[in-house]
Amino acid sequence: MHTDSDCIFCKIAAGEIPSAKVLEDDSCVAFMDIGPLAEGHVLLIPKAHYETLDQMPPAEAGAMTKHLPALVKAVQSALSCEGVNVLQNNGRVANQFVPHVHFHVIPRNQGDEFGFSWPAGQYESGRVDELAEAIRQAIE
Amino acid sequence: MHTDSDCIFCKIAAGEIPSAKVLEDDSCVAFMDIGPLAEGHVLLIPKAHYETLDQMPPAEAGAMTKHLPALVKAVQSALSCEGVNVLQNNGRVANQFVPHVHFHVIPRNQGDEFGFSWPAGQYESGRVDELAEAIRQAIE
Repeated sequence: MHTDSDCIFCKIAAGEIPSAKVLEDDSCVAFMDIGPLAEGHVLLIPKAHYETLDQMPPAEAGAMTKHLPALVKAVQSALSCEGVNVLQNNGRVANQFVPHVHFHVIPRNQGDEFGFSWPAGQYESGRVDELAEAIRQAIE
Repeated sequence: MHTDSDCIFCKIAAGEIPSAKVLEDDSCVAFMDIGPLAEGHVLLIPKAHYETLDQMPPAEAGAMTKHLPALVKAVQSALSCEGVNVLQNNGRVANQFVPHVHFHVIPRNQGDEFGFSWPAGQYESGRVDELAEAIRQAIE
């Protein structure tokens, strides 16, 4: 398993930096974010070091993300919140601050501080099919 | 497999409503969001109907989310974007508009329209451990 000796999340996964863990298995760990967007904000990370999600092998990603339902449920139950966002950021422009894959599980309530605008746009005729084709080709 | 005959995403998964699909397997499908937050915005959904992520069996969630690395990579490649957000919303307060689990894959670039504030807080002494304990108990 590849880890990075300069990475704070690798150190947390290895127990070299203390954290309040809520779930752990062979390949991943979930712990409390100490800079929370809301009380109860949890992070889920792989123990192996991958900078961004596109670098993760599918099976490893699935073995980690299969825990998201239990984490969402537990956070909702423990915090009695009205909703939950799951957020995973790739790249600084997307608000990734630590270059080690992490899924945020963020409790939400009416009037809370965290949130985002939703500037939904529209495609001009034909554009969506062009883009779908480009994405399909990039997958294959 | 449980589906909901009134659900727009169940209809898209079944092909009863047309969509620009980019990936599909037995249990999930990814297609272009027609109200995109950015060009290339993709949605990944289970074919079975679950309103929120906490309702999904772990194995089914993992079988779907294992495709996220490939989708992030393909969107980044096809759109030549600087970053990507993966976002999954549970509850209206968390910006869930369609009550069928969906993961947004959103291309990001400097100065684009979509984005969020990051009001990171701090815990008072002991509070993070209390919350971690409450969440651990809710998992078990």
